[in-house]
Amino acid sequence: MSKKVPNRILLTEEQMPKQWYNVRADMPTQHAPYINPRTMKPAAPEDLTPVFAEELCKQEVSLERYIDIPEEVLEYYKLYRPSPVIRAYQLERLLDTPARIYYKYEGSNTSGSHKLNSAVPQVYYNKKQGIARITTETGAGQWGTALAMACAYFDMPLRVYMVKVSYQQKPYRKDIMETYGANVFASPSDTTEIGRAILAKDPGNTGSLGTAISEAIEMAVSTPNTRYSLGSVLNQVLLHQSIIGMESKAQLEAVDEYPDYVIGSAGGGSNLGGLMSSFMQDRLTGKAKPYFIAVEPSACPSFTRGKFTYDFCDVGHITPLAKMYTLGSSFIPTSIHAGGLRYHGMSPVLSQLYHDGFLDEARAVGQKEVFDAAVLFAKHEAILPAPESAHAIKAAIDVALECKERGEAKTILFGLTGNGNFDLAAYADYNAGKLENYAPTDEDIAKSVADLNFEPQL
Amino acid sequence: MSKKVPNRILLTEEQMPKQWYNVRADMPTQHAPYINPRTMKPAAPEDLTPVFAEELCKQEVSLERYIDIPEEVLEYYKLYRPSPVIRAYQLERLLDTPARIYYKYEGSNTSGSHKLNSAVPQVYYNKKQGIARITTETGAGQWGTALAMACAYFDMPLRVYMVKVSYQQKPYRKDIMETYGANVFASPSDTTEIGRAILAKDPGNTGSLGTAISEAIEMAVSTPNTRYSLGSVLNQVLLHQSIIGMESKAQLEAVDEYPDYVIGSAGGGSNLGGLMSSFMQDRLTGKAKPYFIAVEPSACPSFTRGKFTYDFCDVGHITPLAKMYTLGSSFIPTSIHAGGLRYHGMSPVLSQLYHDGFLDEARAVGQKEVFDAAVLFAKHEAILPAPESAHAIKAAIDVALECKERGEAKTILFGLTGNGNFDLAAYADYNAGKLENYAPTDEDIAKSVADLNFEPQL
Repeated sequence: MSKKVPNRILLTEEQMPKQWYNVRADMPTQHAPYINPRTMKPAAPEDLTPVFAEELCKQEVSLERYIDIPEEVLEYYKLYRPSPVIRAYQLERLLDTPARIYYKYEGSNTSGSHKLNSAVPQVYYNKKQGIARITTETGAGQWGTALAMACAYFDMPLRVYMVKVSYQQKPYRKDIMETYGANVFASPSDTTEIGRAILAKDPGNTGSLGTAISEAIEMAVSTPNTRYSLGSVLNQVLLHQSIIGMESKAQLEAVDEYPDYVIGSAGGGSNLGGLMSSFMQDRLTGKAKPYFIAVEPSACPSFTRGKFTYDFCDVGHITPLAKMYTLGSSFIPTSIHAGGLRYHGMSPVLSQLYHDGFLDEARAVGQKEVFDAAVLFAKHEAILPAPESAHAIKAAIDVALECKERGEAKTILFGLTGNGNFDLAAYADYNAGKLENYAPTDEDIAKSVADLNFEPQL
Repeated sequence: MSKKVPNRILLTEEQMPKQWYNVRADMPTQHAPYINPRTMKPAAPEDLTPVFAEELCKQEVSLERYIDIPEEVLEYYKLYRPSPVIRAYQLERLLDTPARIYYKYEGSNTSGSHKLNSAVPQVYYNKKQGIARITTETGAGQWGTALAMACAYFDMPLRVYMVKVSYQQKPYRKDIMETYGANVFASPSDTTEIGRAILAKDPGNTGSLGTAISEAIEMAVSTPNTRYSLGSVLNQVLLHQSIIGMESKAQLEAVDEYPDYVIGSAGGGSNLGGLMSSFMQDRLTGKAKPYFIAVEPSACPSFTRGKFTYDFCDVGHITPLAKMYTLGSSFIPTSIHAGGLRYHGMSPVLSQLYHDGFLDEARAVGQKEVFDAAVLFAKHEAILPAPESAHAIKAAIDVALECKERGEAKTILFGLTGNGNFDLAAYADYNAGKLENYAPTDEDIAKSVADLNFEPQL
């Protein structure tokens, strides 16, 4: 620790990992299998291949420890990676904490977040298989933008179902996807049976991630040579995102650091799953024992108040069932602005790790305190964070202050998954004093988890 | 050239320049002095010190070759610098050109552009002098955002006059400035005499950069202990922006390259002046002869169709007169979307260099062809450029295609000054086929330059 750590710890492109790390290879207990809801038996490969490209189906169930990143994917990664790990000197000074705070910043690419890391290989594998078009959903718009960028690069047509409330509140997210050539529909739409059914019952329905997933999958399986892409939750996504943690570990090692705390925002789990990859490997293999914290919005608290059980991944109930922490697919989160964290479920891998005690802690934080942390961070670290990312900032600040109280010079690593350039309407609400902390009542949650009594035949 | 050049050529923070380079030290002919319009004599120091902080007034007239960057400014720079030079492999492949294309990317900081490079020292010097608040204007919003970020960091109150049409069309630019604590007014406003006079005559006036400058200066000189900041045109700004070119030269040297062409968008000149710094030094001192191209919008063609003469820098005629290429301070550019390039004048230093043949060429390009280039670039290089920056992309592509025609493996460096995250409304217009190339008529220009007959007593 004698040498001065630079503000931004960089890697050269030669130092960028050439393989992804698959945490499942080191987990003592695998997550319960996906279940085909028609048979209630474990999903067979042929249940998944109509939805996802074959190579991605293989990755979804793979227990290989390392998987090569294709050359074509590496070439795209090099356009924006490796991303920096940044020492938050200004924040440390402001908090007057003995803790050393680092963050991995994934927001400087045009999509504005880490989502591009999985969009690129997903499009690549579809292209390689000769798939003619891709469908997807997007909530806050980060995933849709990332997939649109990857599709433009690989010349792949894309149809995006965008949650209607986001479509209306974030027109520029639609515009950027269209600039990259995507076809964007507000969901629920009249282009699918599920969308039409919802609109018939409730014409003013403003949509949800679960509904948009249903529409995108329906369109994929009912259109020739079309596949679907998902930006979170799945094992393949965590695999692709492992590059975040692998790079982070190399960057911290370069300045003789190892994190005592690894802190990530958690919606579907793509960010936290990626950030913790190499550090969780150390934990699972007994090499080190970093403390992992998942941070979720109090408005959508799947880890902290959800149930660990089988549930659908979508509202229309056309996906396989997954065993995960869930608030129930009928749970409707309030329209807090961290749109990307408004998902009822959680990655099965992260759910299993949390259940087994390897993911140490989950914290739920309110949106007002998240924006307080975001603005403090923006002013002193010169990056305007996405509201999703700011959940991790809030927790990192709290941990740094705990360290101060205890006089402990711990090392904190958190994931700054994206920038807030497309979230200014939310910041304007914050500036106007309109944001409040919010949490659903116990009755709300009890109601939405009441139906979760699926009994698979394992 | 045998070794493989990485996509992104990085510098460590230790390699970041510790001094700015002042091109005036090497110019054989200095630009004509600023003129006090009341006396028509060269402006005295006491004409400038009520407007700008003293250290900045000194820099404005300095002929020192190198000026130390203060430690506090370096500390902020390290939050986002050095910025990368990127080899545009994908664009080269697409154009099938033997030319090697590099671009210096200044858009990955939260302000979205190079403007932060001058905002930070300007606020620092004001703070050091004990100034209580700063005023400024902003057109497209990049400068206002940059100054708001620097003011938040140094705890300096800020009042921004934002051109009304931008204020209305780009609400998120206002929101981000407010998030950083700035007070934002649509210009013309009722807070200044100049604003009130314009509104009395023309209540629907949607403003201009020249008007907003007048309002910001009036407010600065009429409020105790208040100073004004300008994001372009001035010598001090070119000085601060020299870090762009100094870094670029070091980065290209690291891969054994030297540019045959240096290409930059030019509005007021801050970007091109910064990008060319070290290369222009080589040119002026006879060490090398890179070819410089300034790219401006055909809608606001100060270099290519303006007059090299004395003019006011603002519409309200309260600034000193400067000798420069100008369309006349009464010139009203059409509302093309490259808002940052809609200024009637041009940096006196760049004007002199152009007049003397050191800045080799100026090209005017139409906005539709600029957006064509921008979208091509966005899809293949994975960065959505600001419309201002895309002027340089358009010219770089043209030069690369000229190289292809001639079979010449030249080295091209262009400046990618900013990202287009706040310009999606313009991209939406482009996507909808609403953008056309535009140029003022000869009569338009003849009318606005007709009054330019100032006769200073030198």
